[in-house]
Amino acid sequence: MIWRRGVWTVGCGEEKGMDRNMIVELISVGTEILLGNIVNTNAAYLSEKCAGLGLSCYYQDVVGDNEERLYDTIKTALGRADILLMSGGLGPTQDDLTKEVAAKVMGKTLYLHEESKAAIQKFFEKRGMEITDNNWKQAMMPEGCIVVDNPNGTAPGIIMAENGKHLILMPGPPNEMIPMFETSIMPYLSRLQSCVIFSQTVKICGVGESKAETMVADLIDQQTNPTLATYAKTGEVHLRVTARAEDEKAARKLVKPMIKELKGRFGNHVYTTEDDVTLEKAVVDLLLANKLTISTVESCTGGLVAARLINVPGVSEVFKSGYITYSNKAKRRLLGVKKSTLLKHGAVSEEVARDMAKGAAVVAKADVVVSVTGIAGPDGGTEEKPVGLVYIGCYVCGRCTVKKCLFSGSRAKIRENTVSAALSLMRECILQYYSEVTFGGKDK
Amino acid sequence: MIWRRGVWTVGCGEEKGMDRNMIVELISVGTEILLGNIVNTNAAYLSEKCAGLGLSCYYQDVVGDNEERLYDTIKTALGRADILLMSGGLGPTQDDLTKEVAAKVMGKTLYLHEESKAAIQKFFEKRGMEITDNNWKQAMMPEGCIVVDNPNGTAPGIIMAENGKHLILMPGPPNEMIPMFETSIMPYLSRLQSCVIFSQTVKICGVGESKAETMVADLIDQQTNPTLATYAKTGEVHLRVTARAEDEKAARKLVKPMIKELKGRFGNHVYTTEDDVTLEKAVVDLLLANKLTISTVESCTGGLVAARLINVPGVSEVFKSGYITYSNKAKRRLLGVKKSTLLKHGAVSEEVARDMAKGAAVVAKADVVVSVTGIAGPDGGTEEKPVGLVYIGCYVCGRCTVKKCLFSGSRAKIRENTVSAALSLMRECILQYYSEVTFGGKDK
Repeated sequence: MIWRRGVWTVGCGEEKGMDRNMIVELISVGTEILLGNIVNTNAAYLSEKCAGLGLSCYYQDVVGDNEERLYDTIKTALGRADILLMSGGLGPTQDDLTKEVAAKVMGKTLYLHEESKAAIQKFFEKRGMEITDNNWKQAMMPEGCIVVDNPNGTAPGIIMAENGKHLILMPGPPNEMIPMFETSIMPYLSRLQSCVIFSQTVKICGVGESKAETMVADLIDQQTNPTLATYAKTGEVHLRVTARAEDEKAARKLVKPMIKELKGRFGNHVYTTEDDVTLEKAVVDLLLANKLTISTVESCTGGLVAARLINVPGVSEVFKSGYITYSNKAKRRLLGVKKSTLLKHGAVSEEVARDMAKGAAVVAKADVVVSVTGIAGPDGGTEEKPVGLVYIGCYVCGRCTVKKCLFSGSRAKIRENTVSAALSLMRECILQYYSEVTFGGKDK
Repeated sequence: MIWRRGVWTVGCGEEKGMDRNMIVELISVGTEILLGNIVNTNAAYLSEKCAGLGLSCYYQDVVGDNEERLYDTIKTALGRADILLMSGGLGPTQDDLTKEVAAKVMGKTLYLHEESKAAIQKFFEKRGMEITDNNWKQAMMPEGCIVVDNPNGTAPGIIMAENGKHLILMPGPPNEMIPMFETSIMPYLSRLQSCVIFSQTVKICGVGESKAETMVADLIDQQTNPTLATYAKTGEVHLRVTARAEDEKAARKLVKPMIKELKGRFGNHVYTTEDDVTLEKAVVDLLLANKLTISTVESCTGGLVAARLINVPGVSEVFKSGYITYSNKAKRRLLGVKKSTLLKHGAVSEEVARDMAKGAAVVAKADVVVSVTGIAGPDGGTEEKPVGLVYIGCYVCGRCTVKKCLFSGSRAKIRENTVSAALSLMRECILQYYSEVTFGGKDK
């Protein structure tokens, strides 16, 4: 299970100087995918990463644990791609065939890889378990391959490279595949490229997908190097800038002016240009930076806004408490929303969203409160107040803003969109409060 | 856009009397899947449905909006499958090629389908929009095809059947594809079969995946008709029983004894045998049936338990209020958990889970309370209390049970498992309370 650097730097050299994009094909192996038992999230993950590396992906395949069909799939893919990224079918059972069939396609025999054998022995001894014979299967490796370390499981990854073709085998479970890809496979793929690819993403919120696309249409039309691509996420748009150059420094230099241009166009809507910063993290960071405590009060989202915030490790510094006030009684009893307000305007109204936020600010003694009241459906809608109507309130240090939204789709979709809109509104209100405080603006 | 029943009942007859399972292949068309922009949930959905229909799926393919590659993919798939289920690429833009290429493979020319033309005209007139020329593309249909109604979009589905091969085109967006599949395509596929397939699923909770598999290993070994398959879901296991027979009545008759056997083996762990009942719905139904109100108090799950319950339409009858007490201060102030208990046992402890549940029962005046306190990570774990340690409390009408759990995986995974375990525990505690009340059992 050792990552032999020496071997693949040779393979690397073969590819240098190639002008066209290298072509990658994904093969996911597993009967459980064909039965619809699991969603193939590995393929989406690998595709996005490959696009970021500047590799062209023309096909994704899924095939079961069947020797003949697996052989045909690998053979066909090798005929049309430079790199095959395979996941699944590396386990110790007789059903797991990926390694054996891949070696057969490449004309390689298997040998007992002593280091892998020792690692398996160690794995079992440490746990005081007896090693059954089938486990040695995992120590058999195709001749001339690179064995890739798997710190999260017993099946190592395997790379076979020959005549400009690269067959890469990874385990199927995402918690093994993703770390292996990031630690070992991604650097391998980067070094295959004749040039360095560098990507940076500008993440924006509070701007609709089609509006964002219109705002960058001219940049997309003119694009050569760097390129610009838009990715619509729930309540957010991600703009990815990708450049290729001789080295990373040169690629970063190409990306920089485009990032600056996008920041200029989208202003405060840009919440980060860091890959690992989510919208909820941006909000929590803003709270931390301004030493603001937060509370949530939710009706139709039933705790989802709080749950998104509590996704962020370290949120305990700022998160005081959250309330789920699904019933009118709870809105009155916990938050002091007046019965007359509920009767006059209805639970789903600007007034109630405002009173919920203000009430929670008092009860929770929080600096910032976000409140949600809406109709997630499928029932409960009227002509005047249809399913999808949501009011989001945001209280920041004494002032309160309420936003009216109308979402479409299923109950789950409406709730998901509401949560993103709530996070976006919180960010906007906090920024606005501080810009006005700082620049002498006054309460509206 | 009319579903012409007459046409495909002829096609149906051709297949009657086939002994082997019909083979289906899925082709998802879309560059956005190849770029990793979206996860291919359509494939998982269709695969599960096809398995339920008794169709064998050997390959899933993803290909972009590229004429040559699309042609090759369809051609290859037609050579090895009886039925092709394609989704995506039916829109009005020049990029959308699925219909044109599929017709070419089948040797069919396109003609202007008057009914589709009228439907498009109506669609635009109703919205007072001008019809641009490219929209007529969606009214062009391959000769001899069946045009399938799409009530949720402008692109109809298309079925081409010839020489025992069935090429079925559906739109890509799941909110159009799924209703079309369930309303029109599923009945079409059922009628292709020489026999009727009937499936029923026994859903269980509170039993681990491997234990459940062991408990049915003998049934799986002996299986012929009906067959039994296990599907592991988060915190649940689904056991699907599938029978084939000449008609539905006969198939149901074959399924019945196996369902009875499974119910016997898993007893109270079976929460439903209905397809559309989720675990949260089973819990809410149990609350409704016993006229019990519910409140939630959550720490590390930060509102996710409440959010799952509030997934269920109609929950407002029983859900009183929920609390997110992430900080110790909130646990003390909102629920009256004692400072000394927190200091002596720590926030993540059996005692605190118990006091949180009891406290909320008083504050919220609820009959049932579920409480959660745990360490979701990635930081905050110690040798004594590692990441993944979670205590779940459940209070039912005066008595309180606390369950200690140790989950592994990411922060998200730990939280997800905790939510399922909490729902499962609620169900168990409510059932136990009533069985003891009813049968004269006493407090433990």
